[in-house]
Amino acid sequence: MPNLHTQSCTPCRSSSPTLNKIEISRLMEEVPGYQLHEVEGIKRICKTYTFKNFEEALVFTNKIARVAEEEHHHPQIILEWGAVTVSWWTHAIDGLDTNDFIMAVKTDQIY
Amino acid sequence: MPNLHTQSCTPCRSSSPTLNKIEISRLMEEVPGYQLHEVEGIKRICKTYTFKNFEEALVFTNKIARVAEEEHHHPQIILEWGAVTVSWWTHAIDGLDTNDFIMAVKTDQIY
Repeated sequence: MPNLHTQSCTPCRSSSPTLNKIEISRLMEEVPGYQLHEVEGIKRICKTYTFKNFEEALVFTNKIARVAEEEHHHPQIILEWGAVTVSWWTHAIDGLDTNDFIMAVKTDQIY
Repeated sequence: MPNLHTQSCTPCRSSSPTLNKIEISRLMEEVPGYQLHEVEGIKRICKTYTFKNFEEALVFTNKIARVAEEEHHHPQIILEWGAVTVSWWTHAIDGLDTNDFIMAVKTDQIY
């Protein structure tokens, strides 16, 4: 697989398989600071980025949003004073796809 | 107390008391759709607003953020495709203050 840093999201169909444990484990190594969580049976990867205030956290939120729109792949973003927690998973398959890790890398690059 | 719709936030000190159950119960009637939650022992009021897509949810997020900056009182905002969940509480007192209900009303007005 080419380096995640240079990839863009590819369309994901509801019939696509979710990543298996071994694939997830390998990809987690490429997104330091991200944690694997399971919410209502659906795996997601999450990371909290910190900021000096609310304004800077908002600017970051808007930057992520712009890339999410470009890639047609949208995260959950929790915006708070001084912190933004970004969670990536793929709704179409109720789980994790390589796209989620590509977006996690892009999020790190924005930060 | 004057109508919440016409009020602005007033500075809240860490020595200020949190609202009691009766005060909260009465103020909840003024913010329909908001729910009272307790997270790690801290009461907060939350409401999910729905949208047609991610872009509209982002615009709403930015509008709330602007008012939050003006009032020096910041919420937690969970931004997702088609939905924004806003939670208000007062960090300085680890609980609910009238300011939170004033901001909840302002959030409804923005929506």
